[in-house]
Amino acid sequence: MRRRGVFITLEGGEGCGKSTQLNLLAKLLEKQGVPFIATREPGGSQGAELLRDTILFSDVAFSARSEVLLHMAARADHVDQTIRPACEAGKLVLCDRYHHSTIAYQGYGAGEGAADLLKFIEDARRLIAFEPDKTFLLDVPLQVATQRLAKRKGRTDRYEARGAAFHDRVRQGFDKIQEQEPERIERINAGGDADALSHILFRKIMALREGAVE
Amino acid sequence: MRRRGVFITLEGGEGCGKSTQLNLLAKLLEKQGVPFIATREPGGSQGAELLRDTILFSDVAFSARSEVLLHMAARADHVDQTIRPACEAGKLVLCDRYHHSTIAYQGYGAGEGAADLLKFIEDARRLIAFEPDKTFLLDVPLQVATQRLAKRKGRTDRYEARGAAFHDRVRQGFDKIQEQEPERIERINAGGDADALSHILFRKIMALREGAVE
Repeated sequence: MRRRGVFITLEGGEGCGKSTQLNLLAKLLEKQGVPFIATREPGGSQGAELLRDTILFSDVAFSARSEVLLHMAARADHVDQTIRPACEAGKLVLCDRYHHSTIAYQGYGAGEGAADLLKFIEDARRLIAFEPDKTFLLDVPLQVATQRLAKRKGRTDRYEARGAAFHDRVRQGFDKIQEQEPERIERINAGGDADALSHILFRKIMALREGAVE
Repeated sequence: MRRRGVFITLEGGEGCGKSTQLNLLAKLLEKQGVPFIATREPGGSQGAELLRDTILFSDVAFSARSEVLLHMAARADHVDQTIRPACEAGKLVLCDRYHHSTIAYQGYGAGEGAADLLKFIEDARRLIAFEPDKTFLLDVPLQVATQRLAKRKGRTDRYEARGAAFHDRVRQGFDKIQEQEPERIERINAGGDADALSHILFRKIMALREGAVE
């Protein structure tokens, strides 16, 4: 009985605590000796990291469809060169953002014209043809997210720079996405203590991993 | 009776003379006062030109699917921000390379594994959903192409740097593509005098334009 790799994604709007949870989970998994990789999007492979810089920090205004395909180009490289090989080697893969972020940010975030873009994104998603086994949607009250963001340092990326109306559409978008994929996406209250949450997530992830045998 | 825009692409392997023809055609069209734009791929819009540099000159080895989607991301921006607006304004659009180059280079050029990539490219092509009215495939004897390439200056791009076996698969790929889309793609003997050829192409293009009325 061989354990197969499990692909888990963390999703949510700005300030929901994904990156913090990824770091805490990595420590717990290391301590337990679980073979895993922790990765993120856009990025996660040499090519995708190069594209990350263009996507997040170039001042070029790509067309909406182009921006989606740029994320998908980065994702294809990430899947082909990092995620799939790790899964095939029986590793646990934890990924900060994946398709659902594209749907929330580039789809629902668009506001007017979102319907066409959502269709476009779903078609492109089928092209990538690689889905997570489980997605945790970290949910925090708007006030908590705003406080966390105010403490952030470093340069502001293309999406962080957008206004409150955009981020509100993104948040609502994640809610709709969860309703559409209730089996895959589990909503997690992430407004409380980060350490306590990481242990809750760790137990959930270990249970998923226990069930993943070939 | 309003004249609609006509979208024409020039295709062919390295050294087939596309760029020369594009320049000569531009001069003839200017002389006749025909409203047109001459553009090229990868590139042709601000975002796509930025991606052109990554696609052609970065030393990163993208996965095959990622490379296709990167071309498509550039193409989407080019279509959305340059080609479609020009067509809608009733202009003639001449473009150096488009989908058929992706099929020839990233599809047939792959050799082993080409079948899966050809399917992937066709699916992505449907996503872009914008096809040329006519494609001229410039065909030159291998010897002529090789001589022309030997005279080229400037830095060598990702594809020019590939070996003879790759370029042979690309050439054969263009032949297969033409057989699959005989209505759209017209093969043109481009081994002779460039000026004479530009006048032949000019007449063909003007005839297409005459027929393009709404």
